Amino acid sequence: MAETLIKVDLTQSPYENDKVHNRWHPDIPMVATVKPGDDFIIECHDWTGGFIKNDDSADDVRDIDLSIVHFLSGPIGVAGAEPGDLLVVDILDIGTLADSQWGFNGFFSKKNGGGFLTEHFPQAQKSIWDISGLYTRSRHIPGVSFAGLVHPGLIGCLPDKKLLETWNARETGFIATDPGRVPPLANAPFAPTAHMGRLKGEARDGAAATGARTVPPREHGGNCDIKDLSRGARVYFPVYVDGAGLSMGDLHFSQGDGEITFCGAIEMAGWLHLKVDLIKDGVAKYGIKNPIFKPSPVTPNYRDYLIFEGISVDEQGGQHYLDVHVAYRQACLNAIEYLKKFGYSGAQAYSILGTAPVQGHISGVVDIPNACATLWVPTEIFDFDINPGSAGPTKFLKGDVAMPLSPDL
Amino acid sequence: MAETLIKVDLTQSPYENDKVHNRWHPDIPMVATVKPGDDFIIECHDWTGGFIKNDDSADDVRDIDLSIVHFLSGPIGVAGAEPGDLLVVDILDIGTLADSQWGFNGFFSKKNGGGFLTEHFPQAQKSIWDISGLYTRSRHIPGVSFAGLVHPGLIGCLPDKKLLETWNARETGFIATDPGRVPPLANAPFAPTAHMGRLKGEARDGAAATGARTVPPREHGGNCDIKDLSRGARVYFPVYVDGAGLSMGDLHFSQGDGEITFCGAIEMAGWLHLKVDLIKDGVAKYGIKNPIFKPSPVTPNYRDYLIFEGISVDEQGGQHYLDVHVAYRQACLNAIEYLKKFGYSGAQAYSILGTAPVQGHISGVVDIPNACATLWVPTEIFDFDINPGSAGPTKFLKGDVAMPLSPDL
Amino acid sequence: MAETLIKVDLTQSPYENDKVHNRWHPDIPMVATVKPGDDFIIECHDWTGGFIKNDDSADDVRDIDLSIVHFLSGPIGVAGAEPGDLLVVDILDIGTLADSQWGFNGFFSKKNGGGFLTEHFPQAQKSIWDISGLYTRSRHIPGVSFAGLVHPGLIGCLPDKKLLETWNARETGFIATDPGRVPPLANAPFAPTAHMGRLKGEARDGAAATGARTVPPREHGGNCDIKDLSRGARVYFPVYVDGAGLSMGDLHFSQGDGEITFCGAIEMAGWLHLKVDLIKDGVAKYGIKNPIFKPSPVTPNYRDYLIFEGISVDEQGGQHYLDVHVAYRQACLNAIEYLKKFGYSGAQAYSILGTAPVQGHISGVVDIPNACATLWVPTEIFDFDINPGSAGPTKFLKGDVAMPLSPDL
Amino acid sequence: MAETLIKVDLTQSPYENDKVHNRWHPDIPMVATVKPGDDFIIECHDWTGGFIKNDDSADDVRDIDLSIVHFLSGPIGVAGAEPGDLLVVDILDIGTLADSQWGFNGFFSKKNGGGFLTEHFPQAQKSIWDISGLYTRSRHIPGVSFAGLVHPGLIGCLPDKKLLETWNARETGFIATDPGRVPPLANAPFAPTAHMGRLKGEARDGAAATGARTVPPREHGGNCDIKDLSRGARVYFPVYVDGAGLSMGDLHFSQGDGEITFCGAIEMAGWLHLKVDLIKDGVAKYGIKNPIFKPSPVTPNYRDYLIFEGISVDEQGGQHYLDVHVAYRQACLNAIEYLKKFGYSGAQAYSILGTAPVQGHISGVVDIPNACATLWVPTEIFDFDINPGSAGPTKFLKGDVAMPLSPDL
Repeated sequence: MAETLIKVDLTQSPYENDKVHNRWHPDIPMVATVKPGDDFIIECHDWTGGFIKNDDSADDVRDIDLSIVHFLSGPIGVAGAEPGDLLVVDILDIGTLADSQWGFNGFFSKKNGGGFLTEHFPQAQKSIWDISGLYTRSRHIPGVSFAGLVHPGLIGCLPDKKLLETWNARETGFIATDPGRVPPLANAPFAPTAHMGRLKGEARDGAAATGARTVPPREHGGNCDIKDLSRGARVYFPVYVDGAGLSMGDLHFSQGDGEITFCGAIEMAGWLHLKVDLIKDGVAKYGIKNPIFKPSPVTPNYRDYLIFEGISVDEQGGQHYLDVHVAYRQACLNAIEYLKKFGYSGAQAYSILGTAPVQGHISGVVDIPNACATLWVPTEIFDFDINPGSAGPTKFLKGDVAMPLSPDL
Repeated sequence: MAETLIKVDLTQSPYENDKVHNRWHPDIPMVATVKPGDDFIIECHDWTGGFIKNDDSADDVRDIDLSIVHFLSGPIGVAGAEPGDLLVVDILDIGTLADSQWGFNGFFSKKNGGGFLTEHFPQAQKSIWDISGLYTRSRHIPGVSFAGLVHPGLIGCLPDKKLLETWNARETGFIATDPGRVPPLANAPFAPTAHMGRLKGEARDGAAATGARTVPPREHGGNCDIKDLSRGARVYFPVYVDGAGLSMGDLHFSQGDGEITFCGAIEMAGWLHLKVDLIKDGVAKYGIKNPIFKPSPVTPNYRDYLIFEGISVDEQGGQHYLDVHVAYRQACLNAIEYLKKFGYSGAQAYSILGTAPVQGHISGVVDIPNACATLWVPTEIFDFDINPGSAGPTKFLKGDVAMPLSPDL
Repeated sequence: MAETLIKVDLTQSPYENDKVHNRWHPDIPMVATVKPGDDFIIECHDWTGGFIKNDDSADDVRDIDLSIVHFLSGPIGVAGAEPGDLLVVDILDIGTLADSQWGFNGFFSKKNGGGFLTEHFPQAQKSIWDISGLYTRSRHIPGVSFAGLVHPGLIGCLPDKKLLETWNARETGFIATDPGRVPPLANAPFAPTAHMGRLKGEARDGAAATGARTVPPREHGGNCDIKDLSRGARVYFPVYVDGAGLSMGDLHFSQGDGEITFCGAIEMAGWLHLKVDLIKDGVAKYGIKNPIFKPSPVTPNYRDYLIFEGISVDEQGGQHYLDVHVAYRQACLNAIEYLKKFGYSGAQAYSILGTAPVQGHISGVVDIPNACATLWVPTEIFDFDINPGSAGPTKFLKGDVAMPLSPDL
Repeated sequence: MAETLIKVDLTQSPYENDKVHNRWHPDIPMVATVKPGDDFIIECHDWTGGFIKNDDSADDVRDIDLSIVHFLSGPIGVAGAEPGDLLVVDILDIGTLADSQWGFNGFFSKKNGGGFLTEHFPQAQKSIWDISGLYTRSRHIPGVSFAGLVHPGLIGCLPDKKLLETWNARETGFIATDPGRVPPLANAPFAPTAHMGRLKGEARDGAAATGARTVPPREHGGNCDIKDLSRGARVYFPVYVDGAGLSMGDLHFSQGDGEITFCGAIEMAGWLHLKVDLIKDGVAKYGIKNPIFKPSPVTPNYRDYLIFEGISVDEQGGQHYLDVHVAYRQACLNAIEYLKKFGYSGAQAYSILGTAPVQGHISGVVDIPNACATLWVPTEIFDFDINPGSAGPTKFLKGDVAMPLSPDL
């Protein structure tokens, strides 16, 4: 068995594990070094470091301090990696930890980050998903079960100083355009809750003050939340610092395109089995700005979909110019209305779109003024038939299963 | 063989065919009536009605008057269809016309509508694609060939008066926010080039003055440009007027998600073999706002993809808030840079993204401030290997094949 | 449009068409010549040349003289093709003729060739399948519909004299081991019903006396009845004579692995759009004995199967040594018993296995003494749910639709 | 985490583990009991119980006493299961043991069981396959790597007394038709090496003398070696005794259809995570004789195949009547000849066909006298391009990697 380079103890705070960090900064020390061709195992906390519990209350989702996320394992040094190289990462496998066969999904209160449909679902809600081998099912959302498209929501290499400065300038400048906004436009560096891994003392404090938050995807990859970066995939990451410094976390048992529920996919602790290699000077050779990747040959092969369309006219009839974000929101709302006809609550339907392997396609982006987005819901994941028919929908669910909700205090 | 209800003569102007129209209006008379359960064939002009030629000049793409599009065949009446029903349309097959085994793709001049990447490709360009059975190949873009995912870019039922008024108010109001913009924010009704089918006289003139342009996708479907609405698919359309009034056109031999080149996919004349049925009162029964559909069991089954990521930071480094449009544009630009390393010109690479069965996924839309979009390019469509490797890319193409370009006059 | 090199008139006997033949012989003259790189269209009679009718009687299936089959279109000469080359054939498309939107399936009387399950279904039966675009459905077999995996059951190049002699010696020798068997072990050359294309006079008579029957698949390909040789596929055929001499026919709209009903798949008249190329000396270069091929990227993508196992113990409990034929028969009989629980007659179930895109896999051939074969039935082709459940099967069909049967006279 | 009901110690002889057995007999005591709806984990030895080693000699393959196989874990009792029920088994997951990340493949000496192609490869040979997450690669067979379609080669319920007697009568009768044959026609009960689990004393001795050998697949399933019974699949097993008595073993990391190498697939020790349920009286309700199953939604999704045909004319030109076994052998030999052109030895090519996810289809079984079988080799598993081209094959391999061979003593 490949060596486990980073272990996590789920009974312990991730702040106590110095092979974990929650900010991006070039000075975070490597915690292990591997050679090109090596394979190894990395364990990860869930993105909140255990804050969200396997219970039937959404209080934790309501109350979480989001400045603590995401707890990443790493950085892993790769011998010989230099700026400008491409780090080739094979995701050989991903799995759950033996003592943690479950994951969570939820939506934050609008006051605490919200989610894609926060205007429609403004309060904190949560669902717990039990994992049984390849499959998952939730006690809070009946009638649906699916095979996981397991993946790291967040993975990438350390930025160099220049890239970090670009990020900070870009995002703090953006926040400055509307500093009082709730939720904020972006998250500025925030030292109090920073976990800088093995960086200590003054160096730590300086880096904590400028370390980039882990929330957005950026040039290096990072929190891309791409469901198809799943076990079996191969990713090519740009390298910015000597040794590359690969970190990862935010493991998802499954996620729909967009991760629309924000908290988040089916979030879990777990492990990755990785193999690394290098393409020397690959960034220039292939003209790479963001990571590229190849999908796995082994993914859930759902084929029968019901597809919902949305256009860039908002819920109030307002016109938006080729806005795919608005169009996708309409497609999601259309799907939720449809699923409610079978007995789901709106929140349950929303959760299904956030967790199941639904696809979100950018279908048309040139037919002014409307963008068109499509949302693909696999019909095979339901215990009953959700296809349209002349008799109309059957209300299979009685509505007696509720999804935990915690009103704002 | 099913009856052909509408025939087109490609040597004739579509304005001379009274079973064709190019505006949406409830008063356009049905040109034929079918019963639920019937199947029938409809022929269609290409969207420009033959304006774009199979030649090696992009002058036609540069010079086209876009107020003439799209030439639609219909409307077809369905006996018993009433407002509130769902019209179930099985796309039993689609094909080319025997005397027209080709299609075109291009990008408009920025002055005449542009395209998704018009800032990067501001001038009119064109490529011609020869169709050989299931496959296509272009003399202007070497090294690539693929099976078509043939589909109607535009299909839907007539709006009723109220829906039409909603559209007109919404879009003219939107234009009014920036009336001088080039390209415009939207297209207002425009009588001079309207083709109102069999509507004649004053009724025709009144309807032409208010008939909605066919460019954007709207609540009824319309110009959705969804590549997966392909032969073998089943679509459920909302019905707004008695008899439904189904019209269609803008056939595509193949298209990438987004139809980013705008002019357009691989545009072609052709025929559809359709079957219709009704779900009475289906709109309310299923809570439908926009059409929904099920994909075909028979589609090109490409599996090996190279996937490009883009985030909502624009070409100048500007930050945009969860903007999928910007993110997808970056993913497309990243793919173009990559393909150039193998010898394609930027325009050729752009054309491939507009025509081949590439997928555009909305990967992350909640990780403030960056949206993440992914562009999936099937590697199997190339005559050579485009996968990354340690040796770097091979310039397979010599650059001796040019794509027609016509500078603005 | 590509040129149609061979046309067929379905109102005419195929014996009157000199671009058709029904025996294999090197002396049959080419009826047209193409160059490597050319694409062209070939029309074909159904394999019986129109003997089987679109009606509700199986008398034609009972009464047919099988020495007349198969009516092939060709041979097509390919300029430059020499013995030892590989002829590369792209099946660009296949379709039905406009005036013949149907196909037939049946089983012969045991006295007239039988079928795979002739001991269980000893009498002539027939079903007619209507073709609607990509899909088919039979008025004789309710509750099932599927997309066609259209293909030529029979295609290959002319044998040379030596190969023909090998065939004749091998098969007549084999017949001689049990000459009175019904059905016979093989079919010897038979001049009276031979159609030798454009070969005339004495040359014709001599060739008719020795021309190989078209029934079995052989080294050159021929009547392989491989359902996956479908539109979009590429085949590499060994060439034995100058000019190659490619002939084809026996078009199938759809077929299950094994073509177990024998009469046959969904048999139809139609056309093929082909493109040819050459690999000079390819037979030796690649060590080819039989044709090889690559499947189409565009095939019905059914995914949800119910799979039946069979082992090489026969219906009477008799033990056979690693006999896949017996094992597959058991798997088929198991599937038939299962489908009967939903209301099908045995004959209807048998017909479904012969026509639908079922897969037959050789699962185990080494575990003495039993071979294991599996039969994969796509569940998505049925109008109702055929999956097992705790409630047991529902008899969806009332048994009021009969499949024509014509008792032996 | 689900409970592990059976553990194995790979350093220990399986004969020392009383939750293991290697014969089928109704009297073997259940080693654990579960309820319908339970999920649980079972560990298994490799089929030889550790006899074959991870080294570079085939001596163990040559010398193994095959009367010891297969070491099965079980039987597991299911509360409430009665004869005539269907036991529904969900294969939730399968994996390797942490200290055993490898598997073996080989062919036996013709004197010791041989294999499908034993006339061509009469001596013992072996290859070792390293397992890295989802993937495998062999140091003895360069240039090929693939994702595993992990499955139990052998799984089923205990027979009742009557079924056991049927098996013994059938197989000993069969052996008696040619008792001196090498390899034998079948394997009779053999007490000396029988492992009867927890059955002890006289009861054990009696059962050992009549317990059925585990080699062939039979009515209950058993050693079906069906590669598609993989993780994520659902199987419906007939129940013959109270409590069902489910046993399993012979885990394969990957196997080609037919398991043609016989020793065997990629054989491994490992664990299964299973869930069980019951369909009461399901055997009669659904007319079940052999198990039926549904494939996994999560399987390696290779799509690009090179397909080889074979007909029932043997290597010496001998004619066989619709013999799929002979036809498949020819298809395999054709594939081996082809792969040799790229530098593989015949033994290496044979091993690839036995281990990789190749498909074996029964393509035609009615076209007298020739059956047609097809062998589908996924091209994507090779590190280089094995498609045919006009330039002929490239010898990518130098032939400097040998597969261990141990001549008969």
